[in-house]
Amino acid sequence: MLKRLFGRRQRSNTASIAKERLQIIVAHERLKNAEGGNPAFLQDLQKDILEVVRRYIPVDAEQINISMDRDGDCDVLELNIVLSEDDHKALDSILENKSVESQS
Amino acid sequence: MLKRLFGRRQRSNTASIAKERLQIIVAHERLKNAEGGNPAFLQDLQKDILEVVRRYIPVDAEQINISMDRDGDCDVLELNIVLSEDDHKALDSILENKSVESQS
Repeated sequence: MLKRLFGRRQRSNTASIAKERLQIIVAHERLKNAEGGNPAFLQDLQKDILEVVRRYIPVDAEQINISMDRDGDCDVLELNIVLSEDDHKALDSILENKSVESQS
Repeated sequence: MLKRLFGRRQRSNTASIAKERLQIIVAHERLKNAEGGNPAFLQDLQKDILEVVRRYIPVDAEQINISMDRDGDCDVLELNIVLSEDDHKALDSILENKSVESQS
């Protein structure tokens, strides 16, 4: 499952500078013959999830690739985020502060 | 990819009452030889994403199955949420209100 997650994308050539990546997939499998499903739900959820990610990593729009898929009664939203070196540092310092807070 | 998402679970016997399901997967692929990764990041992210889901669907803890996986430099968090009929109705009414608000 893990490899297949990122395997869908051409793996960045490992010889080139490897990039840290975050992938978020939301799949909504509806009742067998529910009416047309609710793309608005996944679109709203996507905005809210991105807001959550931005609490940890200050990502810009260009770093984010969003795709929506539908297959029968299943809607799938996929967010692919490429993290920069600065994002990596931002994430580390936020998590460090959180762990200090939780120990005090 | 869609089928494989839910395919990981035994599909509920379609003859029995089909359940609406939501699956959220967060995969964090770290730099090639970054130190041990950041499970705290995915755990915090998971709590925040669940908070977001609860804005749409009032899910209880028993409806949620959470699993964490690690494979080399990739950490994967998986949330599986089984929705009840009431959740389905709650979601529909929230989305309806949102669409009315957006048109006014």
